[in-house]
Amino acid sequence: MKSKITFVGSGNVAWHLAKAFDLAGYQIHQIISRNETTGKELAKKYAAFFDTKPENVFDDSDFIFLTIPDKAIESTIEKIKANSPIFVHCAGSCSLATIANFKKNTGVFYPLQSFTKGRNLNYFEIPIFIEASDKNTFQKMWDLADSISNSVKHLDSEKRLYLHLAAVMANNFTNHLLAQAEKVMTMEELPLVWLKPLVEETIKKAFEFGPENSQTGPAIRNDETTIQKHLEMLESNPGLKELYSIISKDIGRK
Amino acid sequence: MKSKITFVGSGNVAWHLAKAFDLAGYQIHQIISRNETTGKELAKKYAAFFDTKPENVFDDSDFIFLTIPDKAIESTIEKIKANSPIFVHCAGSCSLATIANFKKNTGVFYPLQSFTKGRNLNYFEIPIFIEASDKNTFQKMWDLADSISNSVKHLDSEKRLYLHLAAVMANNFTNHLLAQAEKVMTMEELPLVWLKPLVEETIKKAFEFGPENSQTGPAIRNDETTIQKHLEMLESNPGLKELYSIISKDIGRK
Repeated sequence: MKSKITFVGSGNVAWHLAKAFDLAGYQIHQIISRNETTGKELAKKYAAFFDTKPENVFDDSDFIFLTIPDKAIESTIEKIKANSPIFVHCAGSCSLATIANFKKNTGVFYPLQSFTKGRNLNYFEIPIFIEASDKNTFQKMWDLADSISNSVKHLDSEKRLYLHLAAVMANNFTNHLLAQAEKVMTMEELPLVWLKPLVEETIKKAFEFGPENSQTGPAIRNDETTIQKHLEMLESNPGLKELYSIISKDIGRK
Repeated sequence: MKSKITFVGSGNVAWHLAKAFDLAGYQIHQIISRNETTGKELAKKYAAFFDTKPENVFDDSDFIFLTIPDKAIESTIEKIKANSPIFVHCAGSCSLATIANFKKNTGVFYPLQSFTKGRNLNYFEIPIFIEASDKNTFQKMWDLADSISNSVKHLDSEKRLYLHLAAVMANNFTNHLLAQAEKVMTMEELPLVWLKPLVEETIKKAFEFGPENSQTGPAIRNDETTIQKHLEMLESNPGLKELYSIISKDIGRK
């Protein structure tokens, strides 16, 4: 018989994991969400039961995935009466203890990807980091992850914290810099898309040779003339000017 | 008869442009380089003449490409006696005037890419930005660029400055952030490559939806608990801690 998976939450993570588990042959059993629109939509897609209250989580699921904001995890698991399933959260910066204090069998299932509903992703390429309360639970979580990804690893809560911090820098901060680059382009009505081949090659080289070895530009070669010229060009935007100055100094320090 | 192209300089830009022009059917005529090793190697590859001195640039080239560091452009063109060819530099942050004061027909040929010798690049995808001293020269430069790229645009020196500044942020600064992310990974002996699918998806989304619309993470949702946790984790590295703090504040300001 198919393993049954319930999601508490109907956001981006639930959307993608439900799709991946469905493709791998699991049964999406129940969707619990305060958001009736997205919750019902997800439930309908997989012919799953729908409810708005964590109190009504069925006890006959194999896994309960808490795909909700970090802050809501503790207060939500407290409300759930079911005890038999394995309870799982997907948060990079929350320890296993956040849920292990409330239920018998618990685990962390951290897929290292930025999820947006509706996008096509190759799930097999996404690394998944697993942690569990006990050996038996760990094996079940591993098998589950292994059925949707080619890259499953064991990682404890402490190491996961660092992985999450690095991910924030590589994803959120990098994206912010692209937003700042777009601001500069907009000053002269130039389209951001012109930078695409450059950024793609930058990322390729960083992962192929290591970013430390790939650093180029005015800051690393201490080209003060160009740096000063750029700072003057940013005079009208003090926030951006400060950011440019600080990152350039940081690069030059190497 | 094939147009003849001479390079002054034998670094990464010369390496790639020579390859692209050769593929497009141009004749690589002469390589001038103080570096005898890389210069002779490049000359040999295309059966071109080699010399170490700019004074010895032949007058029978159609184009002389000054693929040398920005700072060296003026002092180098001063030494060149030849006057008939079109003189070209490839520097994002140098104006056309840098060379237009010295020769009759001059142009800027700015390929927006980060070049490393030996890498395979799809030249047709690389945008090339053209500027020239006069209409006739412009047309010749356009035809040359158009023969190796599907994306040729006219851009004046002022706008090119902003494009170069945006490129520094999108390329050099982004790479620096990946280097910092690697430092965090190294603290726990985790490999950078785990972040690859995440970074690739981040870049895809930024160009598809716009980086401003794609921003996620603790800073944009003002998640002070996570930000504080991350800052504590960076206690042993004050430089990195400051960088994290400043970029997070900048994201939160939106």
